Amino acid sequence: MTERDDGLRAEIAAALRTFVVERRAAYRTLGPEVAALIDTLADASTGGKLVRPVFCYWGWRAAGGAAEAPALVRASVALELLHAGALVHDDVLDSSDTRRGRPSVHRSFAAEHERRRWAGEPTAFGTAAAILLGDLCLAWSDEALRGSGLPADVVARGFDVFDLMRSEVMFGQYLDIVAQASTTRSVEAARTVVRLKSASYTIQRPLQLGAALAGGDDGVAAALAAYGRPVGEAFQLRDDLLGMFGDSVTTGKPAGDDLREGKRTVLLTLAYGSATPGQSAVLDRAAGNRALDADDLAAAREVMVATGAVDRVEAMIGELRQRGRDALQAIAHDEAKAALEQLAATVTDRVR
Amino acid sequence: MTERDDGLRAEIAAALRTFVVERRAAYRTLGPEVAALIDTLADASTGGKLVRPVFCYWGWRAAGGAAEAPALVRASVALELLHAGALVHDDVLDSSDTRRGRPSVHRSFAAEHERRRWAGEPTAFGTAAAILLGDLCLAWSDEALRGSGLPADVVARGFDVFDLMRSEVMFGQYLDIVAQASTTRSVEAARTVVRLKSASYTIQRPLQLGAALAGGDDGVAAALAAYGRPVGEAFQLRDDLLGMFGDSVTTGKPAGDDLREGKRTVLLTLAYGSATPGQSAVLDRAAGNRALDADDLAAAREVMVATGAVDRVEAMIGELRQRGRDALQAIAHDEAKAALEQLAATVTDRVR
Repeated sequence: MTERDDGLRAEIAAALRTFVVERRAAYRTLGPEVAALIDTLADASTGGKLVRPVFCYWGWRAAGGAAEAPALVRASVALELLHAGALVHDDVLDSSDTRRGRPSVHRSFAAEHERRRWAGEPTAFGTAAAILLGDLCLAWSDEALRGSGLPADVVARGFDVFDLMRSEVMFGQYLDIVAQASTTRSVEAARTVVRLKSASYTIQRPLQLGAALAGGDDGVAAALAAYGRPVGEAFQLRDDLLGMFGDSVTTGKPAGDDLREGKRTVLLTLAYGSATPGQSAVLDRAAGNRALDADDLAAAREVMVATGAVDRVEAMIGELRQRGRDALQAIAHDEAKAALEQLAATVTDRVR
Repeated sequence: MTERDDGLRAEIAAALRTFVVERRAAYRTLGPEVAALIDTLADASTGGKLVRPVFCYWGWRAAGGAAEAPALVRASVALELLHAGALVHDDVLDSSDTRRGRPSVHRSFAAEHERRRWAGEPTAFGTAAAILLGDLCLAWSDEALRGSGLPADVVARGFDVFDLMRSEVMFGQYLDIVAQASTTRSVEAARTVVRLKSASYTIQRPLQLGAALAGGDDGVAAALAAYGRPVGEAFQLRDDLLGMFGDSVTTGKPAGDDLREGKRTVLLTLAYGSATPGQSAVLDRAAGNRALDADDLAAAREVMVATGAVDRVEAMIGELRQRGRDALQAIAHDEAKAALEQLAATVTDRVR
């Protein structure tokens, strides 16, 4: 990350904090339980890498937006709140116990329920509270974009992108759980999920949101899409590899979690595609096995390496990243071009 | 309901249908699973009584909006989509099996999972899919208001109300599950939940949304609040009575469901407040008892009658409704005044 990015991240984090603090004050009269809920929301929405707001900023710059842009930064907070809501719900969907190295929101509500010796099932309370907190994040993401201080007609252009992005990520998540349930071995199905759930949502649409807010023309939007789609796909493929082979301290998630949950990643479907019957049986034992132990995980890793799936995913990442970089030639703004060049490397690197 | 209301409901239902059909077409390329998801959303968002859009319309009229108002009707669809999302998530929260006399969304996704003999737990899939479908409803509710065709500055005024309403209902729902978990016997806590979750969300804010979209002044907004708050509270109190004593065919929910779930209704907290130790024990056995049978339910009903809680709730309904009607004197528009007078009766009547 560059120094400019560090400063930018600090600005985004401050804008996010301000947004939540204002709401905590506005709803103060609703009492301590609501205040505690908002505090949990504040925790859940901070500590991320702010990837989406950063891409939004550089989309804005690529389309000619000013370098100092407090209103744009406030608008970009919408992406982080949307993401927080999606993660909170995603952790409920996947029954994940941790997020960013801390207990997931539904787990921490369940723990609070136990601590206070309340009636009913702690797990059910945790799920219910997390669903509501996620809903609140989604509603507030909207408020952040609308209330950024940018002119109404500018915001309206932004919502054209934001609306698409929201529907796409939800469709992507739905196709993801369908792929998981139907235990598909189709690489194409896995790639569709990646495109909707990650490429579009993490990079392409945030860039285009920034460009739309800057009043960028169709040419800029197309160039940003030509960069964002492949880099976004490479980002997710790297994430899949890190999830299987990475260090849980770096990822904030236990190693092998995707496999344990039965996620049909491109990595897994590629491994199935080149597996012997014996290797397929190893994968079958591991995928979706909630009781997956270190030996099962090691065996599945071996199959992914031996089938060449890991090498193929690495090759895909390299190829996609290069395609993204090539697309940057169509971006006229030098500083944005350099930043996006750098970001393409950062988000697809072996080490995060 | 008046004839005007029947025509209005037909218009709202048609606008809702059009909204969903347009989106099904827009996302056609994402394949049959996404199309099926959108069909499920269409089912989940229809079949309601359209109470909130109807109040929105009369708020609009009270503030001087035109009688024929297709753009307002399209905007009011936002309320029904928001409500659909809230209900879908609420049914997950409460583990409710039915809604409007049909299987709840998470149950129907679980059934689909079983039918297709998919991998993993049908219940977990149902929950996950229902969370995502609810999220989509929330996102689309937003799109419905923004894309209604009303001018951007008018829509911006509407969002001031809509934003408040969304946060309030989520806070209300959260306080509801906290009240349930903490088994509160506080009538005041129960009334706070009613005010946020029902009175504001079902009547006051929809009315004010309509008025804001019509460009109504603060006077109209205040009069509508003075009407909407008490009538909304009375509406929920009637709902609580119907949930305990009503016919499941009319309510679309099994009788005693609130009690089974441990909801801390005003009715229940009032009964506790006047109960003998023996009567309290009967309520304790019933509230939150998932295995509640017909005898337990009958015993709890008896306590609610014998403690005078039912009579007190009836008296509160009568008093609140009258307060609402009195507030209508400040509404200058005759047709709106008559419609709201009628609606105050309809939504608080013993029979729906």
